Amino acid sequence: MADATPDNHKLLYGIDDIPPLGESLTLGFQHYLTMFGSTVAIPLIMSKPLGIADKPAELAMLISTMFFVSGITTLLQTTFGNRLPIVQGGTFSFLGPAIVICTLDGVADQPFEVKMQYISGAVIIGAFVQIAMGYSGLAGKLLRFVGPVTIAPTIALIGLALFEFGAPEAGKHWGIGGLTLVLIILFSQYLRGTSRIFELFPILLAILIAWGVAAVCTGVGLFEPGHPAYVSTEKLEQAKWLAMPYPFQWGWPQFSIAATVGMFAGFIAGMVESVGDYFACARLAGAPVPNERVINRGIGMEGVGCLVAGVFGTSNGTTSYSENIGAIGLTRVGSRRVVQIGAALMLVLGFVGKFGGLFTTIPQPIVGGMYCAMFGMIAAVGMSNLQFVNLNSARNLFIIGFAFFMGLSLRHYFSTTPFESAWFTGWGAYFSAYQDVLGQTLGALLVEVPKIVNTLGTTSMAVGAGIALFLDNTIPGTDEERGLVAWSQGH
Amino acid sequence: MADATPDNHKLLYGIDDIPPLGESLTLGFQHYLTMFGSTVAIPLIMSKPLGIADKPAELAMLISTMFFVSGITTLLQTTFGNRLPIVQGGTFSFLGPAIVICTLDGVADQPFEVKMQYISGAVIIGAFVQIAMGYSGLAGKLLRFVGPVTIAPTIALIGLALFEFGAPEAGKHWGIGGLTLVLIILFSQYLRGTSRIFELFPILLAILIAWGVAAVCTGVGLFEPGHPAYVSTEKLEQAKWLAMPYPFQWGWPQFSIAATVGMFAGFIAGMVESVGDYFACARLAGAPVPNERVINRGIGMEGVGCLVAGVFGTSNGTTSYSENIGAIGLTRVGSRRVVQIGAALMLVLGFVGKFGGLFTTIPQPIVGGMYCAMFGMIAAVGMSNLQFVNLNSARNLFIIGFAFFMGLSLRHYFSTTPFESAWFTGWGAYFSAYQDVLGQTLGALLVEVPKIVNTLGTTSMAVGAGIALFLDNTIPGTDEERGLVAWSQGH
Repeated sequence: MADATPDNHKLLYGIDDIPPLGESLTLGFQHYLTMFGSTVAIPLIMSKPLGIADKPAELAMLISTMFFVSGITTLLQTTFGNRLPIVQGGTFSFLGPAIVICTLDGVADQPFEVKMQYISGAVIIGAFVQIAMGYSGLAGKLLRFVGPVTIAPTIALIGLALFEFGAPEAGKHWGIGGLTLVLIILFSQYLRGTSRIFELFPILLAILIAWGVAAVCTGVGLFEPGHPAYVSTEKLEQAKWLAMPYPFQWGWPQFSIAATVGMFAGFIAGMVESVGDYFACARLAGAPVPNERVINRGIGMEGVGCLVAGVFGTSNGTTSYSENIGAIGLTRVGSRRVVQIGAALMLVLGFVGKFGGLFTTIPQPIVGGMYCAMFGMIAAVGMSNLQFVNLNSARNLFIIGFAFFMGLSLRHYFSTTPFESAWFTGWGAYFSAYQDVLGQTLGALLVEVPKIVNTLGTTSMAVGAGIALFLDNTIPGTDEERGLVAWSQGH
Repeated sequence: MADATPDNHKLLYGIDDIPPLGESLTLGFQHYLTMFGSTVAIPLIMSKPLGIADKPAELAMLISTMFFVSGITTLLQTTFGNRLPIVQGGTFSFLGPAIVICTLDGVADQPFEVKMQYISGAVIIGAFVQIAMGYSGLAGKLLRFVGPVTIAPTIALIGLALFEFGAPEAGKHWGIGGLTLVLIILFSQYLRGTSRIFELFPILLAILIAWGVAAVCTGVGLFEPGHPAYVSTEKLEQAKWLAMPYPFQWGWPQFSIAATVGMFAGFIAGMVESVGDYFACARLAGAPVPNERVINRGIGMEGVGCLVAGVFGTSNGTTSYSENIGAIGLTRVGSRRVVQIGAALMLVLGFVGKFGGLFTTIPQPIVGGMYCAMFGMIAAVGMSNLQFVNLNSARNLFIIGFAFFMGLSLRHYFSTTPFESAWFTGWGAYFSAYQDVLGQTLGALLVEVPKIVNTLGTTSMAVGAGIALFLDNTIPGTDEERGLVAWSQGH
């Protein structure tokens, strides 16, 4: 999303500049490292709902696939898409819907591969819709209705709604989880100004140190197998040296209306987030302000990226990465070539199975500590859009607060009292009895309605986005009050 | 908190003006009506954790006590305290800690009166501390450390953390609960500009209509006893005509360290909120900007108010009301006398037991619908403090996001895995075995430590406030970046 740009921001390398090869490689690797956190984090988070937290071979393959797909889609976007230096990869926006799919009736009790098939099916359908929206120009038109009043709760709820995965995961061993968290805060906040290494790699450094401490404790026998912070080298041994992700590696995708509808919420949030990223990236990289055509081309290509992600099976889609935009701001290197080299690195390292396998040995409390820092940051990045909005307007306050509150409250409601309706299942069965296509379709749709309601209702950002979008576009308010004026200029 | 003041804001009556008696009475009643929502809402919310949702006589008495105490404390504050036209009454800040007290070990299984005794005990101890802090001048000094970066998550979490009480309560009957919510939104947002009645009483109107619909449905036999939206006239019959709240009416207060520590978080949030209110109120009522002395006097008097609340037993403390400040902004009547007349009305109506009893017949789904609108508004009012802060500063974003996220995440952690420690209980027992005062005290304290950790950990705003306060005052950042400059001017 929108990022800090001092007015005296001077670039070392602009968007079309090509640094010398050695420098390009180092800088490219650095970009690779910035997005690294999320790329590894998403498979690690998904490992629990997918049921592969104890299956290192599968988890390693999932991580490798994630890197591989990130590499391909980044090359596609930077070369044929919006041509901005933005890394593409998995996103937390898809995390909520993907987790919900794993808990659906008829999916929850299935093995890992089947869960992946349902997620892939939903991502693939969403991808086609996104491609159509982008290349038809619909995306750019619809986004006119989306202002900061809608964006703030939508993005913020992506982070906030993950509260069950923060402290509870870190708290499986507060010694190691707390150490990770304290080190991240120490490096990124207190020591930030003292050294470039803390400025660029606070999370990576914190993880490495905590991982090292856990490994030492494991080595001297303090942590035994089964201990939450035990570092399992067996997991690394189980990973293959050569990982070769291939299309439909988890089996043929399965399609379910309920799963797809939930995933749509992720797509919408991802698109909204991406457009914010385009503006921020263009400004930081010294490219012209993106017009509607650039936006449509970018969104369309992100659809293609999601299609690739669904076909190879990453348990996620792809979108633009805010992290690497932050890195452009910090390093003042906005060269497209550098990002492309970073993408090539991802592709190559994606094939090294042991590399993905290495990450599976990170103990869960370390991941939890990282979550606490990262999910909060997502929440705050969402709220930062409030700077464009008049926060003394009772209208805005009501919409924003209501969207935030209902996002959490309805999620709690639907997860404790799922919607069940004899009406829908009854009529669904009635129509399904007809032998024609219309009856069959109508019947299938009606039966799915309760599932759809539950999927959407338990996806906080979908609830927040829906409420904010509707109210912000219908309750009377001036463009200035709603922040549309400052928003179109400011990011 | 800070409110919208157009620069061309012209008062009809200033702080020292005394309108004619008839007008004063009408205007006073209007103030009474604005704060009415919260004054009735708090006992209704507390009725569930206290276990008196089905005991209309006790609930009616609790509501009457609330009005009575609000009247007394408003008269005290406007006459001897900061002398600003601010209504005093119960606050949502105390709601979280009070609910937690009802769930404490050794309290949860006790009857209603005992729960009230523990809450009163905690409020009374907190009140003495607050009185000392105010009249010693410590409050004003400590508040220098509290900037908008701390205030935003603290206040916002008061609302957000109540997400379990919104949709789930309204959802007990979506017909009536949804109607209430839709009407509140319709009146307060869409029809606001069309009539003064919608501008001033959107919540009251919505409740009255939904209540009427529920009463009609009950009358024609559609809702039968046991139905969630059944309007029970028997409840009204059980309330006495004359309600005479008296000191220690629920029994002698009981003191528990864990309960008191949790309540402290409520006191801190309440004080912080109140100071924001003083600035907003003074600006809107045409009074001079409050100096440190006025703040200290106000805080000290709020301590006295809490003492009164604890002694009479409202299940809550008292603090300044943001609602009536909003009403001053809307009506442009800032007269102190008008507020005093409103307070006198509260005192008198507090004695009419049937009046409190009338509110006990409001079906729960209506209350739930009201929560959805009100709790979100609290969250947004908290976030509105972000307007003073640089939201492009990575430092600020980290602190704000981390405080929000951990406020929710640690609450989830401690409510699912309460802290238990053989270490503390063991050493506690060890020291308690000594026959001297020191040993006994130390022992008692050590045994309480796990309870204190759990109480604080499950109080979102305490977690958020603690984290934000510590980080905001230790992570390097300029006064301008932190919003301290704009904050001291802007509210």
